[in-house]
Amino acid sequence: SRMQQEKPLVSDFLFRQLFDTTSSTYTYLLADTTTKEAVLIDPVFEHAVRDAQLCKDLNLSLKYAMNTHMHADHITGSGVLKKITGCKSLISKASGAAADIHVDESDVVQFGRHILKIFATPGHTNGCLTYYSPEQGIAFTGDTLLIRGCGRTDFQEGNSATLYQNVHEKIFTLPPATKLYPAHDYKGLTVTTVDEEKRLNPRLTKSLEKFIEIMDNLNLPYPKMIDKAVPANRVCGVFEVSTE
Amino acid sequence: SRMQQEKPLVSDFLFRQLFDTTSSTYTYLLADTTTKEAVLIDPVFEHAVRDAQLCKDLNLSLKYAMNTHMHADHITGSGVLKKITGCKSLISKASGAAADIHVDESDVVQFGRHILKIFATPGHTNGCLTYYSPEQGIAFTGDTLLIRGCGRTDFQEGNSATLYQNVHEKIFTLPPATKLYPAHDYKGLTVTTVDEEKRLNPRLTKSLEKFIEIMDNLNLPYPKMIDKAVPANRVCGVFEVSTE
Ligand SMILES: [Fe+2]
Ligand SMILES: [Fe+2]
Repeated sequence: SRMQQEKPLVSDFLFRQLFDTTSSTYTYLLADTTTKEAVLIDPVFEHAVRDAQLCKDLNLSLKYAMNTHMHADHITGSGVLKKITGCKSLISKASGAAADIHVDESDVVQFGRHILKIFATPGHTNGCLTYYSPEQGIAFTGDTLLIRGCGRTDFQEGNSATLYQNVHEKIFTLPPATKLYPAHDYKGLTVTTVDEEKRLNPRLTKSLEKFIEIMDNLNLPYPKMIDKAVPANRVCGVFEVSTE
Repeated sequence: SRMQQEKPLVSDFLFRQLFDTTSSTYTYLLADTTTKEAVLIDPVFEHAVRDAQLCKDLNLSLKYAMNTHMHADHITGSGVLKKITGCKSLISKASGAAADIHVDESDVVQFGRHILKIFATPGHTNGCLTYYSPEQGIAFTGDTLLIRGCGRTDFQEGNSATLYQNVHEKIFTLPPATKLYPAHDYKGLTVTTVDEEKRLNPRLTKSLEKFIEIMDNLNLPYPKMIDKAVPANRVCGVFEVSTE
């Protein structure tokens, strides 16, 4: 059989997927249920209060509001979450965005006894990271790899050859049953696996040459939010938030 | 500590949550990864092709398209899925809806080696069911219990006292760490637990009298889709689908 056995999450690892219908963005709350330390991956500005409330409801202490990259389609919730919860913001050094903590390939994010390994997976932007938990068999791919798709490469520092190489070398080489959680989905899907994308991704199963051709011919509209979101995200999403 | 350890899913149990942004409906794909038998809970008409494709992508054979109740806010995908995949439709006897299989309290839904126990949890409608997997520690509550909310009780055969009683007797008595997956969420939340709702549900933590008063004073608008959805769902959502 082709289907790989999925790895069950261990019982002291809390996982919650959250959604923003406006930008179709997924936010992820992860926590160590023993120590109560938590992280939020790709929080959205408009949902910072919801996310902080959920941490409170679950008696969690938010350690990091972290981003997979500097988003162009929504404003990050990191800045507001810092103010509400006292957490630190975290993003890649290569993103060019302000944050309390800058990370890079082979750094590790720790909360309680749990860790996320970091892979630099540029291509959609220069600063795109993939966060990977080997113990749970899950990875957060941001916009690098989407379910049956991938992030666009025609703005910010987009480079389709780089994206292709990083997906093939750093994501498709993870165990086949690894669950992949993207930053977005537009069809109501919530998760995929390495095995599925290696078999079924309509773009990334193609040759590099064909992939570049596909990406060069998407003819996508100019991103609605980019002129507002990128400057805001460069300063952690806080430019609109009063310091009072 | 108040937090209950969540039960990890066993590795031969596939679980996928799917979303319809129009009606904010969650559909659930469950499968036995050994035998490949699968069920879809609360499929949505407009996503039947997506759902059938996902079954195909995962090499699954769809056994049942099953509903928690006769929905008033969207048309079920059961009828279309029957035509595309050859699956059987399944709903409660008390729903009054046509289906291949009618079930009731203490019946069991089986796919591969996995089972879902059935609780009759009327109150939102007469035919509302909750599907429960004791082994996985998960339950599908339909509109009976939503995350920090519950289904409305002011149309179809709604009865707030009945809903309250069923939630307290049949859902809140499950193990506290049981994960509860609702038919809808309007804030981007995807899951809750028995423990959370017993502590935090703003309606169902109240006394029965107070709950009835809350439900009597919601002043909700007449449901947009009801005049189209209920007649369609009474015949399994197939009235619009050509038999060709
Ligand atoms: Fe992006
Ligand atoms: Fe309903």
